Amino acid sequence: MTTLQPVAFVGAGPGDPDLLTVKALRALECADVVIHDRLVSAEILGVVGPQTRLRNAGKEGFGPSVTQADINQMIVDEALTGARVVRLKSGDPTVFGRLDEELEAITEAGLDFTIVPGLTSASAAVAALGQSLTKRGRNTAVRLITGHDMQGYADHDWRALARDGEVAAIYMAKKAARFIQGRLLMHGATPSTPVTIVENASRPEQRIVAATLATLPAVLTEADITGPALLMYGLAPRDAAANTLPQVQEMI
Amino acid sequence: MTTLQPVAFVGAGPGDPDLLTVKALRALECADVVIHDRLVSAEILGVVGPQTRLRNAGKEGFGPSVTQADINQMIVDEALTGARVVRLKSGDPTVFGRLDEELEAITEAGLDFTIVPGLTSASAAVAALGQSLTKRGRNTAVRLITGHDMQGYADHDWRALARDGEVAAIYMAKKAARFIQGRLLMHGATPSTPVTIVENASRPEQRIVAATLATLPAVLTEADITGPALLMYGLAPRDAAANTLPQVQEMI
Repeated sequence: MTTLQPVAFVGAGPGDPDLLTVKALRALECADVVIHDRLVSAEILGVVGPQTRLRNAGKEGFGPSVTQADINQMIVDEALTGARVVRLKSGDPTVFGRLDEELEAITEAGLDFTIVPGLTSASAAVAALGQSLTKRGRNTAVRLITGHDMQGYADHDWRALARDGEVAAIYMAKKAARFIQGRLLMHGATPSTPVTIVENASRPEQRIVAATLATLPAVLTEADITGPALLMYGLAPRDAAANTLPQVQEMI
Repeated sequence: MTTLQPVAFVGAGPGDPDLLTVKALRALECADVVIHDRLVSAEILGVVGPQTRLRNAGKEGFGPSVTQADINQMIVDEALTGARVVRLKSGDPTVFGRLDEELEAITEAGLDFTIVPGLTSASAAVAALGQSLTKRGRNTAVRLITGHDMQGYADHDWRALARDGEVAAIYMAKKAARFIQGRLLMHGATPSTPVTIVENASRPEQRIVAATLATLPAVLTEADITGPALLMYGLAPRDAAANTLPQVQEMI
């Protein structure tokens, strides 16, 4: 067993390959096999070494039958061959990434692991808005929450979130938007509270669509959001030009 | 004004230079001047180009008189010379980074900006524990909270945080630890709830110290935590070996 490599759980970040960490880039370049989620961008998969095999753990062709157990088994099987395995997850593997289930499977198989954290998409989304997730005098906490859990729409501390000045990044929220809106309004949230939709954060096709709690479901429908999207609750774009800010790449 | 460069607000990440993003690395390499916080590690400052001037915005020699207004002015003055200015902040500039105050100052001065997000230290800390910030069936939300705000110890939704399974990364919590412990216990938290101290996350001198809500103040004192530390509320290290897990750098 001593010749087996630890499995590297690597965060791919939000999509822009320049938002990979140096450590993630190096792990991808040296991997024998990269087992990746469906949401990982083609640009990021393009940085792997010439010797690297790519395996899609969320392959559409697999159909809806690709289970978490299948993915766990794929990781374990590859690692047991002695391959350098990178399990590449969108964003940060520790944020809504079902990381624990995979860690448990490989630990049970007697394998070691390492985690290379990645940028979660909320960080890229808020940067695109020209805003900050926390602000003195406004909020001393920020929540990363999911719109969905195992039971369906996820329940949260709606009363606390409904207070003025609260900020949350809501993942997987498109289908749950009307439910979230209803819960927050029921608990006294101000209908004009800004909610900004950030679709494809950090990718070339990124879109920022401003809404309020009152207009959210209508705006979501009208904007025809089809890519991965975050709802930035409590944050508006700093100004109308936020979408066209120069990028560092152009600056340097 | 058209020849002025946008100011780049860049996240330095938790301390390990390999946890810089590719974009941040490039911005540092090409900057004319880097205005950095006191907490940014020497290893990270070592990646700047030979032409780059370093200015410490938290310089000890400045004494306690270095104000946010002084920092704002420093950024604006440098940018008005036409220099490529990087304002380098520990972690992610959008998380407890007082980013808004600086953005407002440079916007008032008629300058443009761009934000390069960074890895917040909670991501590195939880990776070091071999844990996940969210987990199906345990928590559908994670909070990043601060121990301190402008009024002193920061108040939070203690009742919600006191529930079993809640997870929060608490920044700037060393002095507030006894206050936090008291509030949580008062609101019904289980005394055996794990709270793990991660000092100097991702740096060579990183330390992981396991505690519980009941033992936290005593453990903090006994461990003599002097570096920047995060409290990972609701998370224990995966196993005793978490601290000695192989790093990807050794793997590849």
